[in-house]
Amino acid sequence: MGGFGRGSGCFEPRCAAALLLSAPVCETSSTMSVNTYDVIVIGGGISGLSAAKLLLESGLNPVLLEARNRVGGRTFTVQNKEAKWVDLGGAYVGPTQNRILRIAKQYGVKTYKVNEEEALVHHVKGKSYAFKGPFPPVWNPFAYMDYNNLWRTMDKMGMEIPKEAPWRAPHAEEWDKMTMQELFDKICWTRAARRFATLFVNVNVTSEPHEVSALWFLWYIKQCGGTMRIFSTTNGGQERKFAGGSNQISEAMAKELGDRVKLGRAVYSIDQTSDLVEVKTVNEEIYRAKYVILAIPPGLNLKIHFNPEMPPLRNQLVHRVPMGSVIKCMVYYKENFWRKKGYCGSMVIEEEDAPIGLTLDDTKPDGSVPAIMGKRRICEIYSRVLGSEEALHPVHYEEKNWCEEEYSGGCYTAYFPPGIMTQFGRVLREPVGKLYFAGTETATEWSGYMEGAVQAGERASREILCAMGKLHASQIWQPEPESLDVPARPFVTTFVERNLPSVGGFLKFMGVSSFLALTTAAGVVAYKKGLLPHS
Amino acid sequence: MGGFGRGSGCFEPRCAAALLLSAPVCETSSTMSVNTYDVIVIGGGISGLSAAKLLLESGLNPVLLEARNRVGGRTFTVQNKEAKWVDLGGAYVGPTQNRILRIAKQYGVKTYKVNEEEALVHHVKGKSYAFKGPFPPVWNPFAYMDYNNLWRTMDKMGMEIPKEAPWRAPHAEEWDKMTMQELFDKICWTRAARRFATLFVNVNVTSEPHEVSALWFLWYIKQCGGTMRIFSTTNGGQERKFAGGSNQISEAMAKELGDRVKLGRAVYSIDQTSDLVEVKTVNEEIYRAKYVILAIPPGLNLKIHFNPEMPPLRNQLVHRVPMGSVIKCMVYYKENFWRKKGYCGSMVIEEEDAPIGLTLDDTKPDGSVPAIMGKRRICEIYSRVLGSEEALHPVHYEEKNWCEEEYSGGCYTAYFPPGIMTQFGRVLREPVGKLYFAGTETATEWSGYMEGAVQAGERASREILCAMGKLHASQIWQPEPESLDVPARPFVTTFVERNLPSVGGFLKFMGVSSFLALTTAAGVVAYKKGLLPHS
Repeated sequence: MGGFGRGSGCFEPRCAAALLLSAPVCETSSTMSVNTYDVIVIGGGISGLSAAKLLLESGLNPVLLEARNRVGGRTFTVQNKEAKWVDLGGAYVGPTQNRILRIAKQYGVKTYKVNEEEALVHHVKGKSYAFKGPFPPVWNPFAYMDYNNLWRTMDKMGMEIPKEAPWRAPHAEEWDKMTMQELFDKICWTRAARRFATLFVNVNVTSEPHEVSALWFLWYIKQCGGTMRIFSTTNGGQERKFAGGSNQISEAMAKELGDRVKLGRAVYSIDQTSDLVEVKTVNEEIYRAKYVILAIPPGLNLKIHFNPEMPPLRNQLVHRVPMGSVIKCMVYYKENFWRKKGYCGSMVIEEEDAPIGLTLDDTKPDGSVPAIMGKRRICEIYSRVLGSEEALHPVHYEEKNWCEEEYSGGCYTAYFPPGIMTQFGRVLREPVGKLYFAGTETATEWSGYMEGAVQAGERASREILCAMGKLHASQIWQPEPESLDVPARPFVTTFVERNLPSVGGFLKFMGVSSFLALTTAAGVVAYKKGLLPHS
Repeated sequence: MGGFGRGSGCFEPRCAAALLLSAPVCETSSTMSVNTYDVIVIGGGISGLSAAKLLLESGLNPVLLEARNRVGGRTFTVQNKEAKWVDLGGAYVGPTQNRILRIAKQYGVKTYKVNEEEALVHHVKGKSYAFKGPFPPVWNPFAYMDYNNLWRTMDKMGMEIPKEAPWRAPHAEEWDKMTMQELFDKICWTRAARRFATLFVNVNVTSEPHEVSALWFLWYIKQCGGTMRIFSTTNGGQERKFAGGSNQISEAMAKELGDRVKLGRAVYSIDQTSDLVEVKTVNEEIYRAKYVILAIPPGLNLKIHFNPEMPPLRNQLVHRVPMGSVIKCMVYYKENFWRKKGYCGSMVIEEEDAPIGLTLDDTKPDGSVPAIMGKRRICEIYSRVLGSEEALHPVHYEEKNWCEEEYSGGCYTAYFPPGIMTQFGRVLREPVGKLYFAGTETATEWSGYMEGAVQAGERASREILCAMGKLHASQIWQPEPESLDVPARPFVTTFVERNLPSVGGFLKFMGVSSFLALTTAAGVVAYKKGLLPHS
């Protein structure tokens, strides 16, 4: 941490200090303005803003540089006549996400519950089934055993994984060498469970089971509170939205920071070779500070030329953690026809190559502007799933393709392909000289969410306060008291859910005493793995 | 391609055209020199240099911008008293690599054969076995069947994969969802074959079987000419080195290009919004041209801020193809003690967590400066494998950690994790406006090698010549006549190699007529997969 315990010494931002840069070939002179601060925060998403906010409140003099011409990062609220307001980026919030709820409350941004009054719809094999509860029910006893074992196994494996250091899990190496696809192939005996498991990955991390490390995905679910918490609407990650849109939180923080927030400042160079860190922006400005917080996705660190170069592990990490792929969209209707049919608007859609897996009602809390949140090319599917002509006649449409955003790289969050977490994970938030790392990817609770962004931003700020001697190291990581408005209820499992055998266990139980039965079991295994002739 | 058929119009480079950039907050004025060319080539490795060379020879006016203060990219020759000269980056060359051989010959750079006169050593389970030929021999009949089937299967799968479009292979999706680890688990029945298969991935693409897509790796082997061609010293990819070091080729090309090669010019911005493309460098220069060739690894495109942003697929691709990890090193000895013991210096080392898998003799062609090429922390291993005290007493040591290079990102080449090739591969060398893509990663023959760098650089230049109307589209891709100095011999397989059953096939053949035998086979499968109780 470099031992920078020399007090705050807040500078006022200064302008117009001339700097002459020489260019070796052509005669060149460049006069760039220089601005000096205590801390430069790079990235104006929720993480960077909450970092700068805490630094300012701690009596320091921060500046925030944002590449885009807006704050909010991966949250993005659009306002127009048709939609009133609509979140086309991060939007959902729920119990145990106490930090983002605290900040929202501070600025008077209220939450409302996503509609789940009526039945949900599970669409599978071309048919729709109404249901209640977080997961679609399963009637086939084998499939039931298999589903039950799937959730139980993922949560049990998660318990072994330290949320602050997944690479230290007892089976870290073994699980990191596997994709989630491989793990599902091992856990699941039925096609139904495997299909739903795929949807579970798609929906939660906007990537495919064969793309992600099992260790990373199991960690991701765990640090959100488990399979039930992450996937549920009621009592889970999708319980609520912010009335008026999530971007209000970023805007309120930005307002408080005033002209310390500089928009349109894409950073392309960070030089740590002098006493002060020097940061240059594409629009030809120079900023200097004692410390820098990078509150951007790890992969976007690559937009910056570093002097000196980053250490080898970090240099390689940032090439290895891509962002997920998602086009978020909203379809608007004249009427809330699904509620009339007894559906709440939540659809779990299992279809080969369907462009959408999960939808939620996005009607405004007062019942106005009826809408369903999903992904592209979807009206036809809505119509099929809801069995309604009306779905084919939307009155308005909004979408945001996050894959095309240079300064996000994708959405919602970075994923770890197999092998990366155990080899490179430990440097994810390890400071490099005077550089500190925030961004939701560096969080240990609800990483990937707005909540994780706040945790990471505040933690990075406290690391700097600690480096300055203003805070003890034990105060860097702070727990958050529970929100009074959005309390969490525990998820209880039944005796049957805890003790029902898996399909494999069941077959083993039935088979151990009999050679013939074992043959059958082994035959089933071999067939399942595609290793016996199918004749 | 935009239809830029408006003739060559070669400009002379101009300096000192003033450009005023306004900064919104502080009073700022910036005077940057502007230099105008036909084509800006970004990246001074072999690919960029051979692109610029061809453009110049075609009568155009190119400039080459290189971030480092040297040319050569991932080739790097060090000269000093102890080593004379030594290649710490790309070094090996062999038959069928006709393009790089053509360029080397043009500049009078000669090749010499890597010493393989004496026996190779295969070190496994703590013991060393001398052998001849490209692969260590196998005596256990099951293991032999298994090895034979491994190479045969990889080559057979490779035959299905179009080298110019691996995403179009009949089984592209299926193979891309698998890691090589999964494929090995399916193909290999013996631990010996699986261990050697791991080494085969490590050595060829400096990454792990669980990290790479099977589709990508099989394509990689195929476009190098198959398992035998890529792995062999004699008649293969490691047959020769360049006397005096591979960097001489880059230096000779740079010399020919003269002051069109600009070192220390890291590019941070490319703007395509005007008639001419505008490129800015970290050292505050502006270059303008009709076209740009990016001759850098795909992941290093991220160092550049693009206006307009890249298309969604490309924007996501560049976050998904990391470079391998390697520290290349050389250990120097007073004497060529291994040759005296009857070993040529090639060691195939299979050891759990060994920091090295393959070594080669690196003694100079005249027998001076005895050395062995390998990786870090290796003297002790050399001593164990060669059974010689002398290995513990090197007289000199050279190494290069490619993982720490900001402007390489790693070495030798980019790898594709599972799922990426089929989703994003098709945009790898697809032009974006006036930007064209070179770099060995975009090649279709010996991609990952110096040969691929030349193929890609020349192809990108011809794409521009075609866009300018100076070349027909059918001339963009050109075959290369065979080098007369380094002819290729075909690899012949024996009747037995072609027709020997795999272990699985053998068991199936023995078992189909008998229920009990089938049980055993299935039992073996189930056990192999770890799905039966081990009691």
